[in-house]
Amino acid sequence: MSSWDRFCSLSTHISLEEFVQSSAQGDITYASTVLKLVAETRSKGYDLICLPLTTEKWKSRWRDMCILPSGSDRDRDVVAEERAEAWRANPAFMRDEVTMTRLDETEGVIAIISSWLELDAADDWVRHDSEIALQQELSYACYLNIPSVILPPPRNRAHVASYARAVNECLKNTPYVRFSMRIPIYDPSIFHPRPSSISDSVSSPANLLSSTPRIEVEEDQLLAMKPPRAPEGELNGTWEMWDIIRSVCDYNPRLTLTLDLTPPLPSNLGVLSKWAAEPVQHIFLPASTFIANTKGYPVLPKGTQSFIRDSMAHRPTVILSDVASGVHSRGGEPAYSQYVRHLEKTCPALQSAMKSGTVEHFAQGYQDYLQAPLQPLMDNLQSMTYQTFEQDPVKYRNYEEAIYRALSEWPSSDRIVICVAGAGRGPLVVRCLSAIQRSRRDAFIYAVEKNPNAFVTLQTRQELEWHSKVKLLFGDMRSLEIPEKADILVTELLGSFGDNELSPECLDGAVRFLKPKGISIPSSYTAHLAPLSSSKLYNEARTGKDDKSLETPYVVMFQAINLLSGDGGGLGGRCGPQVQECWEFEHPRKDAVLNARGLPPMNSHNTRSAKLNFHIPHAGVLHGLAGYFEAVLYGNIGLSIHPHRKDQISKDMLSWFPLFFPFKAPLYLPSNSELQVSIWRLTNQRQVWYEWYAESFMPVFNTPSLSELSDDAQSTMNARGSFFASTSTPMATPSPLIDAIDAHPLLEEPTEEYRKADIGVVKIGQTSLHNPGGKSSWIGL
Amino acid sequence: MSSWDRFCSLSTHISLEEFVQSSAQGDITYASTVLKLVAETRSKGYDLICLPLTTEKWKSRWRDMCILPSGSDRDRDVVAEERAEAWRANPAFMRDEVTMTRLDETEGVIAIISSWLELDAADDWVRHDSEIALQQELSYACYLNIPSVILPPPRNRAHVASYARAVNECLKNTPYVRFSMRIPIYDPSIFHPRPSSISDSVSSPANLLSSTPRIEVEEDQLLAMKPPRAPEGELNGTWEMWDIIRSVCDYNPRLTLTLDLTPPLPSNLGVLSKWAAEPVQHIFLPASTFIANTKGYPVLPKGTQSFIRDSMAHRPTVILSDVASGVHSRGGEPAYSQYVRHLEKTCPALQSAMKSGTVEHFAQGYQDYLQAPLQPLMDNLQSMTYQTFEQDPVKYRNYEEAIYRALSEWPSSDRIVICVAGAGRGPLVVRCLSAIQRSRRDAFIYAVEKNPNAFVTLQTRQELEWHSKVKLLFGDMRSLEIPEKADILVTELLGSFGDNELSPECLDGAVRFLKPKGISIPSSYTAHLAPLSSSKLYNEARTGKDDKSLETPYVVMFQAINLLSGDGGGLGGRCGPQVQECWEFEHPRKDAVLNARGLPPMNSHNTRSAKLNFHIPHAGVLHGLAGYFEAVLYGNIGLSIHPHRKDQISKDMLSWFPLFFPFKAPLYLPSNSELQVSIWRLTNQRQVWYEWYAESFMPVFNTPSLSELSDDAQSTMNARGSFFASTSTPMATPSPLIDAIDAHPLLEEPTEEYRKADIGVVKIGQTSLHNPGGKSSWIGL
Repeated sequence: MSSWDRFCSLSTHISLEEFVQSSAQGDITYASTVLKLVAETRSKGYDLICLPLTTEKWKSRWRDMCILPSGSDRDRDVVAEERAEAWRANPAFMRDEVTMTRLDETEGVIAIISSWLELDAADDWVRHDSEIALQQELSYACYLNIPSVILPPPRNRAHVASYARAVNECLKNTPYVRFSMRIPIYDPSIFHPRPSSISDSVSSPANLLSSTPRIEVEEDQLLAMKPPRAPEGELNGTWEMWDIIRSVCDYNPRLTLTLDLTPPLPSNLGVLSKWAAEPVQHIFLPASTFIANTKGYPVLPKGTQSFIRDSMAHRPTVILSDVASGVHSRGGEPAYSQYVRHLEKTCPALQSAMKSGTVEHFAQGYQDYLQAPLQPLMDNLQSMTYQTFEQDPVKYRNYEEAIYRALSEWPSSDRIVICVAGAGRGPLVVRCLSAIQRSRRDAFIYAVEKNPNAFVTLQTRQELEWHSKVKLLFGDMRSLEIPEKADILVTELLGSFGDNELSPECLDGAVRFLKPKGISIPSSYTAHLAPLSSSKLYNEARTGKDDKSLETPYVVMFQAINLLSGDGGGLGGRCGPQVQECWEFEHPRKDAVLNARGLPPMNSHNTRSAKLNFHIPHAGVLHGLAGYFEAVLYGNIGLSIHPHRKDQISKDMLSWFPLFFPFKAPLYLPSNSELQVSIWRLTNQRQVWYEWYAESFMPVFNTPSLSELSDDAQSTMNARGSFFASTSTPMATPSPLIDAIDAHPLLEEPTEEYRKADIGVVKIGQTSLHNPGGKSSWIGL
Repeated sequence: MSSWDRFCSLSTHISLEEFVQSSAQGDITYASTVLKLVAETRSKGYDLICLPLTTEKWKSRWRDMCILPSGSDRDRDVVAEERAEAWRANPAFMRDEVTMTRLDETEGVIAIISSWLELDAADDWVRHDSEIALQQELSYACYLNIPSVILPPPRNRAHVASYARAVNECLKNTPYVRFSMRIPIYDPSIFHPRPSSISDSVSSPANLLSSTPRIEVEEDQLLAMKPPRAPEGELNGTWEMWDIIRSVCDYNPRLTLTLDLTPPLPSNLGVLSKWAAEPVQHIFLPASTFIANTKGYPVLPKGTQSFIRDSMAHRPTVILSDVASGVHSRGGEPAYSQYVRHLEKTCPALQSAMKSGTVEHFAQGYQDYLQAPLQPLMDNLQSMTYQTFEQDPVKYRNYEEAIYRALSEWPSSDRIVICVAGAGRGPLVVRCLSAIQRSRRDAFIYAVEKNPNAFVTLQTRQELEWHSKVKLLFGDMRSLEIPEKADILVTELLGSFGDNELSPECLDGAVRFLKPKGISIPSSYTAHLAPLSSSKLYNEARTGKDDKSLETPYVVMFQAINLLSGDGGGLGGRCGPQVQECWEFEHPRKDAVLNARGLPPMNSHNTRSAKLNFHIPHAGVLHGLAGYFEAVLYGNIGLSIHPHRKDQISKDMLSWFPLFFPFKAPLYLPSNSELQVSIWRLTNQRQVWYEWYAESFMPVFNTPSLSELSDDAQSTMNARGSFFASTSTPMATPSPLIDAIDAHPLLEEPTEEYRKADIGVVKIGQTSLHNPGGKSSWIGL
């Protein structure tokens, strides 16, 4: 099977009990129990097998050495203490304390590190000895060439920094092995009491998740059953722990997530979107998460279905657990994996990837891959590059339509002069000719090109196809003179952010060709931004070849990202939509001071700046900004990669992936905070570049703080922060390209109650990118 | 005058009016007006002169070119626009637009960049042209070799990021020149309406501060006059702007502060302490800030006096302004500078520095200088190092007293054996002999030393001074055997953080020498931490020689720092005091598992961890942690560098500066936030090191957020964050060294009102240091 129609791998989870059972049965066909289990698993169609690395024997020995008998206070049993010290000096397993011993057993195995280890116990000694045991198990896994292990889940928010520190230390000490941290999508103990832990000296395994009851309900019953609701902060708890751990481990790419879907999903699905920006390697899916449909077969609740479908883009391993024990009455073990394969087939990422003509199909293998933006002005493009972009059916269709409409509005008696500036290998010339024919107008085309290599191709096409309908002109549109002024100037100089490939600078030169009432296609374009979280992109950008790698925007086909902003909201409703417009360029521009040659003496008029307010409904980590463009070609014909509007304006257009503006330092954003983004388009006499900056704010209430109350009872001080007005965020400017779409239904007035409360915002953090390394240069001006 | 008795330089400020006046008078003695002014200024005893770089002519031309006539909307005057474009292409001054033209004029000059430039105007074009003008002026200042310029104050919080970006760009483009940003200690417009700005087309200079009225009141009248009170957030405003600007400029050491004391100081002086951690180069002090005393002479209000006295530690230039215009009835111009000199003489930093025997005197030149901590176990110290530390009168006096008291409690008939482990060049041996004599006990001394070079000195002293009272033993205390067991073990192995020079590891070996009931001097020691802000230390640490420079603690004599924590407070009063205890080591230790040689098989027992909660009353930037120690030598005799207790326990002790634990990334902390610090003392079989981590939290109220209200009106969601219990912060444990000192009066119960409110905390940020480069190693175990 190719990677094209398989987005996830399937694994079965073998519990210790199942291992012991299988071991007791014996089978002389296989050299070991693990080899037997692997063979059985493969025959059932699983790709991988997931099983514990250690046995109950190890757990008992560790507990006898390292856990104080209850009631013994601080007087440790001297014999146990001496055994523990000997173990700490030379940590080693006995044969019967591990499940695997042979290299041939570990192929296709995901090993589970002892899940009862408490790296975040409240007790210093339990933490200390858990870390030694973790390092011992990892060192053994490394010896056996096990490629991937699952770490015990963190359980204690108060000591998660100690967990993080220990894992970081182990990452440094253990080469090659990939660590995947098992964590539930939220902590189920916010609804149930937490199961007791090994350090409470309880004999049952301290598995955070083992106590979840099995549920078997009809599907329509389930719809009536309200999913659990909990405060946002509580639902964030496990993600917050993950964020601390991976931050302390400095975003080590060998540290990934095993998302545990044992707890039922919350109704507030927005809170789960943050996992999309994280490196989800495995999804742990027990039979108890399935419900029975009316026929008794196992199916997943709607929310879980869609969460798993969305997660398929990460190409995870789905680890099915407890599927052999008959939790559901029909279907048996195969029903679960068949169901997951069914979800895979119906996931949007796979469907788009399979369908030819979509961006997803076109972009296979380019997801989350950072590309330096093209600099067609400075570099002469290769023929292959032209060929790739000429494949876009939508872009050129829309160009032809725009030219056609412009021609159609001309009096049919006029002779119309069209100038294609930057003709490349000629795709726009072809579209112009077609539009001329369709509109039955008398029009002549000048085609200007500065790339000497492409100009050879143009000559060939003129000779073979175009003949006298087109006159070719070789030279830079900023300095060339053309024989007569044009009525219509057609260019395709746009980048992912609109102006980032120096379209404004080039058009400043080319508009000289236009008659006073002439028109430019495109007539305008806008740049758009949204704050973005993606540990993948952050890691990719900073591990670039040189120091400058975090100092330039990249062209990226986004996949494992999460847009952090919500639509509208914020204090007093002052935040704009999820994706906000930065600035616009119009052609031909008005009020221009020009020199004798018709060129602007300075490039100042092409500088821009924007200040945008975003509402951040759910906690997340800001890693950068997503940049998009939208262009008006002519009338209501446009091009757009704006995520909310592209499908209405230029669906399935392939030529542009969005831009990613990275920040050097990630910025933590709490739930319900506000983010203020500043971005500048800057220029000197030779270069154009961007700089960007973000500041975060939290709403606070005007209530005296504790310390000030005790300091001075008469104090009129309060916790109100620096309250300042902001006017830059554009409020839902309607696009000329979309009729009657109210894109921002949430931009409503704040409630009366809110307006009365004395609230303000207080600054809580900032990050920026200045001193950029990547500047777009031009030559020859 | 030496730098020893001068902490500040004095400058006079010449306004443009004064310059024009002086210019009009003429004087053929001098080649130019500036040369005349410089000569006059020097003759009055000023060290420096501060004057504007540009004239009214320049302001008029710039405004004519760059400011739209009011009511002209977006149609720019074409002629003005063409002039502006020509200027933008080639920015240059006319002769009469600048005050200085000659190299010999600029010696001892601080030049003021046109203060009416608005780098943070709301209008894009005003910002753009202000930046070109700024770069033009800086380039001219650089040409004239002016070493230091004062930048126009930022005025607009909403566009301060643009100001910051422009200054950063200019720092990159202008070599050598130091930029000092003028900023008032808070924005006076929170009390008065803001003066209008140049972009409002007003003819008077848009000086943020020029509108403050002159006040002349009796001193006792002033005491009755309540200083202005304002919300904490408003008072933070100008510092918040400074923080953004220097952060965007990446803490460039050429960017400093000119603190403007024009506005009267607020009563909440705590809010001003943050300036202590910033690079204050100049203090701008107009005559209007002075009040008249009963005799009519100018004096400063008490708050301003103490603020200036504290600022003297930065060795600033005090720029006196408007002092020649007779604001006060008596004393004339000299009265102001005499008064500042009087403040200087009475400032604590200078007084301490002048007084021999103080740490400040001893440490001259070492303030804020980072030193790698000693590693006496791995390295053999030089004789000079021993000599420096033997100079400490207090440390050895306390040691002698401790030994004396221990001896005195022994039955006088017993023969007492003392072992000095790590005798160095013998200072503790001398103190033991003196204590023996004073206590009239029969005692014998073994002196153990592993440094072969120091052992030669010991032999010399034995032969000349000690004779048979002392037996020298050469070797490492962790492996040596001594002829008989000792009653008292005396060591001096402490570092600035107590255990950081591996005292616990060394004493694990040395306690083998002790009889079962024997005692160790010191008997215990504790490590203490407080969160710290200091742009100086942050910059010093990261500009170290290698990548590891931010990964190790440093020994530092603190000066330009600010402890960010307050005493107690926080949500529900759960935060501890300003400086909190991390952990303790006791000797001899109890419950030790030992091997046949009497040594612990592992070093696990010497690992430690602590989790501390600090309340942050005023906004600041966390750059690191300040580390201190306190030791109990014997009974109530101790050693301490704890900032609140050192003077009671070991005043004027010289041997230890505090430890500075840097963070890699600065962390912004809002007013009234909480900081949770985790620190670990870690060990493997060869090394000891620390790792540290901090997380910040804000109190939030349980109120539905706007977006959720509009999302789902029935929602029970709230903005409450992850609420978790913390128990680690030690609550005001009384020190055995201080009787009846209630160090934490603010640790009171929260008010009833507060307890009722449904409040929680939400995480807002984090920073950490893991992967440390600096580890203390030992050898020979």
